[in-house]
Amino acid sequence: MVAELTVALDGMGGDFGPETVISGADIASVRHPDVRFLIFGDRAIVEPILLKHPRVAAASTFEHTDVSISMDDKPSQALRRGRRTSSMWKAIDAVKQGRAGVAVSAGNTGALMAMAKVILKTMPNVERPAIAALWPTLRGESVVLDVGATIGPHAFQLVQFAVMGEAYARVIFNIEKPTVGLLNIGQEEVKGTESVKLAAQMLRESSLPIIFHGFVEGDDLGKGTVDVVVTDGFTGNIALKTAEGTARQVGEYLSQAISRSFFAKIGYVFAQGAFKTLRAKMDPRASNGGVFLGLDGLVVKSHGGTDGIGYAAAIDVAIDVASANLLGKIRTDLDLLTGFRERFMAPGAEAGRKAADVTEPPEVALS
Amino acid sequence: MVAELTVALDGMGGDFGPETVISGADIASVRHPDVRFLIFGDRAIVEPILLKHPRVAAASTFEHTDVSISMDDKPSQALRRGRRTSSMWKAIDAVKQGRAGVAVSAGNTGALMAMAKVILKTMPNVERPAIAALWPTLRGESVVLDVGATIGPHAFQLVQFAVMGEAYARVIFNIEKPTVGLLNIGQEEVKGTESVKLAAQMLRESSLPIIFHGFVEGDDLGKGTVDVVVTDGFTGNIALKTAEGTARQVGEYLSQAISRSFFAKIGYVFAQGAFKTLRAKMDPRASNGGVFLGLDGLVVKSHGGTDGIGYAAAIDVAIDVASANLLGKIRTDLDLLTGFRERFMAPGAEAGRKAADVTEPPEVALS
Repeated sequence: MVAELTVALDGMGGDFGPETVISGADIASVRHPDVRFLIFGDRAIVEPILLKHPRVAAASTFEHTDVSISMDDKPSQALRRGRRTSSMWKAIDAVKQGRAGVAVSAGNTGALMAMAKVILKTMPNVERPAIAALWPTLRGESVVLDVGATIGPHAFQLVQFAVMGEAYARVIFNIEKPTVGLLNIGQEEVKGTESVKLAAQMLRESSLPIIFHGFVEGDDLGKGTVDVVVTDGFTGNIALKTAEGTARQVGEYLSQAISRSFFAKIGYVFAQGAFKTLRAKMDPRASNGGVFLGLDGLVVKSHGGTDGIGYAAAIDVAIDVASANLLGKIRTDLDLLTGFRERFMAPGAEAGRKAADVTEPPEVALS
Repeated sequence: MVAELTVALDGMGGDFGPETVISGADIASVRHPDVRFLIFGDRAIVEPILLKHPRVAAASTFEHTDVSISMDDKPSQALRRGRRTSSMWKAIDAVKQGRAGVAVSAGNTGALMAMAKVILKTMPNVERPAIAALWPTLRGESVVLDVGATIGPHAFQLVQFAVMGEAYARVIFNIEKPTVGLLNIGQEEVKGTESVKLAAQMLRESSLPIIFHGFVEGDDLGKGTVDVVVTDGFTGNIALKTAEGTARQVGEYLSQAISRSFFAKIGYVFAQGAFKTLRAKMDPRASNGGVFLGLDGLVVKSHGGTDGIGYAAAIDVAIDVASANLLGKIRTDLDLLTGFRERFMAPGAEAGRKAADVTEPPEVALS
């Protein structure tokens, strides 16, 4: 699709800055020798690191930027300080200008999303963006969105997330017909917020070419019950961090239990291979890379605290979505939503807004 | 406080019915020889089981009921079919009548909450009930509420949850000053839903005798950053099930990794003790028992799929909260909320409702 793909990199983003970015690009460039990088950052810091990574240097164009967005900058500060001048802004702007097919940043999520919205704008038929994460499951991986961009989307926005997430799953998992579920607190139709219930009705009764599985619950995330789990950014973000925390907690229990006994330590030596497998399975670096969906251009967010291996995984995601023309696929799918809102929502602005209200569940309201 | 405590048991609730209930009561009665049980259920089914558990039989009064609420009954069905006649209804009603200090049921949550609301009503100064769960953490255990009773509480209702959850933590953990956090998608004041932000402001600026830690995130649940985590029932339910699912997922990874290699199996034999410790740490039965808070009477929900050991843990929770006079403590604390709403919310009904609306986070709204 893309003859020669260029990936724009925010060289200064992340907890560890250019070290992580360049070593990630190094790892990725072995897997993708044809990809070019367009790196933005502070010359005095980035160039010495590039010298140590000749493979990246050869595959890259470097451009100096004066301003770096810090991990603590509020989105408003970032926009004030970093507009047109920061490495983050310029990486996204390179996508807007067509100089790059996709941008990657490990910078702070709020700032990155705010800038991406300003520069790229939302696509036609999309009201709010979503961040789609890859979630390791017992069956492999699922796409979960939104994990933090949009708090309190209404029903039709959840349907838009479903359409975009399904397209992303097709591309990233290379499957034709991903299954889609809506995250809820029960399987029954009467459960959940008004927006979730209405979104389910829309997905069920629509003729969208989506395999809608219905509601899924929190424990379905780890099981991998569906390929795509749709939720609001508040719930998705908390679920994601809860899962990360629980995995670390269990890992901690395990190492405590083993270090407490002599025989367990011997057992550990024998089972080293198995523990290595386990660690690999649980390695959050493997599923690094959150894709911003709904914007008119591709941006991938790397975890800020990751290392080169994790950053390379985010670059892989970026390359996958850009070379598979994810934007084009989403645009085509979203066309199917024309007239959709009118079909399902009562006339007037009220209908669209009403769905965002959260209400008491029917069973409790009974009494 | 309570000279002789009677615990009312819904003998027919749960996936496995009276077998689990009676064997749970048997285990609990060893730990609490002074506690009496008031058991409701179908005589033809329960009596033969009681014969096999003479210790429970001796500590119990049994009353026949014709109707059992099934795990699939919708709350409305349950109320129609089971009003005044079912084992679930009668167990709760025994609390209302003062015949028991607390009721335990493993029946379906929606039905149990609907009946409990009808029979017991909400307390003064409480608008909506919450279900408080015990959450295993790296530091021990935390209280998390609400995990499913109230979808979309407004800010003042979240403050009520904080007050009730703090009182519960004092009782169940036997600590004087539990710390309280609000579950959110970031630590910063600008993040989250309107109701979460306003609730934080209320807790921060009020003179409530609560140690308010501020916002906590999903990964703070497993860390045990605070003793009490306050959230809405939608998010709390999904977080709880996500954590359960993730723990199972990691356990599954571990057993797959070990069963795949000969040396790992040998290692497993040596490390058996450690794996036993790990299993005990991760045993969901140990933290079984969700307390309904905000009603004028105590009801404890046991997990429907648990066994006798898990059911006994729910009875333990019930005994703890009843004998520590949790209701009285909550009533006293809630008195401090008189005039609270007026202080923090703009006049008119609108203010109370507005807080329940979920809105876009400020950083995204910027652009």
